[in-house]
Amino acid sequence: MAWEARDPAFERLIRESFARQKVMALIGAVLGRVEPGRVTVELPFRDDLTQQHGFFHAGVVGTVADSAGGYAGYSLMPPGSSVMSVEYKINLLAPADGERLVATGQVVRAGRTLTVCDLEVEVMKGAERTLCARGMQTLIRLDRGPRGAAAG
Amino acid sequence: MAWEARDPAFERLIRESFARQKVMALIGAVLGRVEPGRVTVELPFRDDLTQQHGFFHAGVVGTVADSAGGYAGYSLMPPGSSVMSVEYKINLLAPADGERLVATGQVVRAGRTLTVCDLEVEVMKGAERTLCARGMQTLIRLDRGPRGAAAG
Amino acid sequence: MAWEARDPAFERLIRESFARQKVMALIGAVLGRVEPGRVTVELPFRDDLTQQHGFFHAGVVGTVADSAGGYAGYSLMPPGSSVMSVEYKINLLAPADGERLVATGQVVRAGRTLTVCDLEVEVMKGAERTLCARGMQTLIRLDRGPRGAAAG
Amino acid sequence: MAWEARDPAFERLIRESFARQKVMALIGAVLGRVEPGRVTVELPFRDDLTQQHGFFHAGVVGTVADSAGGYAGYSLMPPGSSVMSVEYKINLLAPADGERLVATGQVVRAGRTLTVCDLEVEVMKGAERTLCARGMQTLIRLDRGPRGAAAG
Repeated sequence: MAWEARDPAFERLIRESFARQKVMALIGAVLGRVEPGRVTVELPFRDDLTQQHGFFHAGVVGTVADSAGGYAGYSLMPPGSSVMSVEYKINLLAPADGERLVATGQVVRAGRTLTVCDLEVEVMKGAERTLCARGMQTLIRLDRGPRGAAAG
Repeated sequence: MAWEARDPAFERLIRESFARQKVMALIGAVLGRVEPGRVTVELPFRDDLTQQHGFFHAGVVGTVADSAGGYAGYSLMPPGSSVMSVEYKINLLAPADGERLVATGQVVRAGRTLTVCDLEVEVMKGAERTLCARGMQTLIRLDRGPRGAAAG
Repeated sequence: MAWEARDPAFERLIRESFARQKVMALIGAVLGRVEPGRVTVELPFRDDLTQQHGFFHAGVVGTVADSAGGYAGYSLMPPGSSVMSVEYKINLLAPADGERLVATGQVVRAGRTLTVCDLEVEVMKGAERTLCARGMQTLIRLDRGPRGAAAG
Repeated sequence: MAWEARDPAFERLIRESFARQKVMALIGAVLGRVEPGRVTVELPFRDDLTQQHGFFHAGVVGTVADSAGGYAGYSLMPPGSSVMSVEYKINLLAPADGERLVATGQVVRAGRTLTVCDLEVEVMKGAERTLCARGMQTLIRLDRGPRGAAAG
């Protein structure tokens, strides 16, 4: 699907908003590509992001997926919007065993109020790229409050 | 629903497994009550767990919910089991604005292979207790590998 | 949870709307209890509602659950509203093997725009009552169009 | 994704199983394309499949999506298998307003026990084709009982 942004400043706004999400700094997530309707969030492996087998924890996988989807939706909203997750659902398809997660949010419906995204998380291990999670997310557009753009 | 544990050591195993989930230490989550079919995980507020409005990030809410559900399911499994999340879905009902999250996983179906849990997250602000998220989770039981009990 | 209806005519409106959902007549579903924030839909067994094992088809289980939830949400909306399903998720917990399904929708969050419901489907077989499905649903409130109240 | 069937008789088995799902005859659904990992189910409009606005009911949309996904998963299973829906989640993206629904199930993970499918429903209105629902589904493989192949 090809989408067009309605706010030409979308990329800058997203990068600023992401920088304000302190949990992203805590886990070491970085914003990847930011395109209209499609955003990636990357997360290098760290030992303190794991469950008891030493793989990325399912909650961490969900966190970067939710974040990628939130910003994908936000990229298409008109100026003055903020965005909140209404719900997300994620299927864990394979162990998140590797050096890096790449989460992609892709808008499949951009409505006036509600936006729906596909979520995908791949794990990179050496030259291998494995789809380790797939999900869906519903977002709601709100008028921006005094504290600036919102996602998540 | 009242469930009976099949492994009398369930509480000790859960506390040991939780201690090996390093991401729980990273975010500061602690295991609360551990009962057959019902487990709570608590998370005190920290500034580095927030999204851009200063509330707990939706991904963090999902992480503690997934963890509580995983251990609730694990509490009913026979000795020698490990557990993995197959999928979870979470609805964010209210801003997670407060001093502490309390996530509860409650088993609604305990099958030989698959377990289904209700997930609930409350946020405590002063004397107020608000349901901020509600979800469902599907877990799969596996035979325990060499690395010990699994959840998440 | 105890909810209060904002439209005193809610029960009549729901019964009228249900009567206009032709698919309910096709499958033989009937509206059960209609209370503020809680509605049940019942479905007697018929051979033509089955999958290949002779049990109620999973899609039929989802249909009555979605309908019960839609009307539960609608019961709390202000006059002049209509309601649409945004999404629903359902876990099939046990074979829907019996003489009658009872689907219950229960509101857990009633917002200005979005409502979230718990969904539950029980199957009755003789004196036995088995929880055969459990789900969650997100609804959106719309201003009523010219064709009257909406659910589903 | 390109998948390979492990049972060369998959198409015949699916067509036979579909023919035994009496609810498909009730609503008038027909099996479309049957490929390894990908199955479509089509449903012509009928007045008795509608909600109160005269569009296809959300439950009917979910029913054909669940059916398409169940058979997509079944197409990849080894001989002697049967399949059951564990859970499905569906987002309604646009009113299902048209002459025909085309539901597609596409396998994204085919495991020994669990299979995960993407679900998509399009509605055809004249020359227009609109994505009206998108979902995800988890299936479980069972050893076939005495009553033959299972899906749904």
